Amino acid sequence: MNLTIGSSNEEYKIVIVVRTDLKMSPGKIAAQVAHAAVSCAIVSEKKHFREFNTWYSEGQKKVVLRVNSLEELYKIKSEADINAINNCLIADSGRTEIIPGSITCIGLGPSTDSILDKITGDLSLL
Amino acid sequence: MNLTIGSSNEEYKIVIVVRTDLKMSPGKIAAQVAHAAVSCAIVSEKKHFREFNTWYSEGQKKVVLRVNSLEELYKIKSEADINAINNCLIADSGRTEIIPGSITCIGLGPSTDSILDKITGDLSLL
Repeated sequence: MNLTIGSSNEEYKIVIVVRTDLKMSPGKIAAQVAHAAVSCAIVSEKKHFREFNTWYSEGQKKVVLRVNSLEELYKIKSEADINAINNCLIADSGRTEIIPGSITCIGLGPSTDSILDKITGDLSLL
Repeated sequence: MNLTIGSSNEEYKIVIVVRTDLKMSPGKIAAQVAHAAVSCAIVSEKKHFREFNTWYSEGQKKVVLRVNSLEELYKIKSEADINAINNCLIADSGRTEIIPGSITCIGLGPSTDSILDKITGDLSLL
């Protein structure tokens, strides 16, 4: 079965971009990133099944990047919306560590390396 | 719609237990935890839809815990299997940081607090 979509053999990935200015613990970051990844996966499974299925069958690649402010995160959301990239902004329930409702990260995809790198290619790994 | 299952109003959660002895970076940990959470979510959506749906509609609670060895992780997997708890052991593809195929974490659930606390209640938060 060939699940490749589009004109190349590019890998599919989900990118999660995390705010470092909130000074979350590694465990808190992990939970927020997981929240973003699950949300992107479940939404794409319903609305963009081909992309979801390709990504999932390829081994569900994920890349975790960082920004240092809420403004940078909103800028990425805006660019994702403009480019019609599936995205999920995560607001923490605030049971621990940070103020309830704080926006902690955004999940993007699944989509191809080239599409996602257009808007996140300049960011550093977490 | 009342999505409560069983005899109580307990919350549903996914617990992810991470190995700290591998000395992974926060970004690497986050990606591994996300992998476990997505795997548990997708598998449970197919095989245990009521549990999945309750957990997802409640806000997809996740808790990230830690152990210090592969042996401890395998012990938790064994106890999850004995108790018929949905679980996903994660082996890293090894592109960065650690040896390819290393078992990094396990995802458990979604299930109730009381069921999961039986086998993970003594573990510390990551």
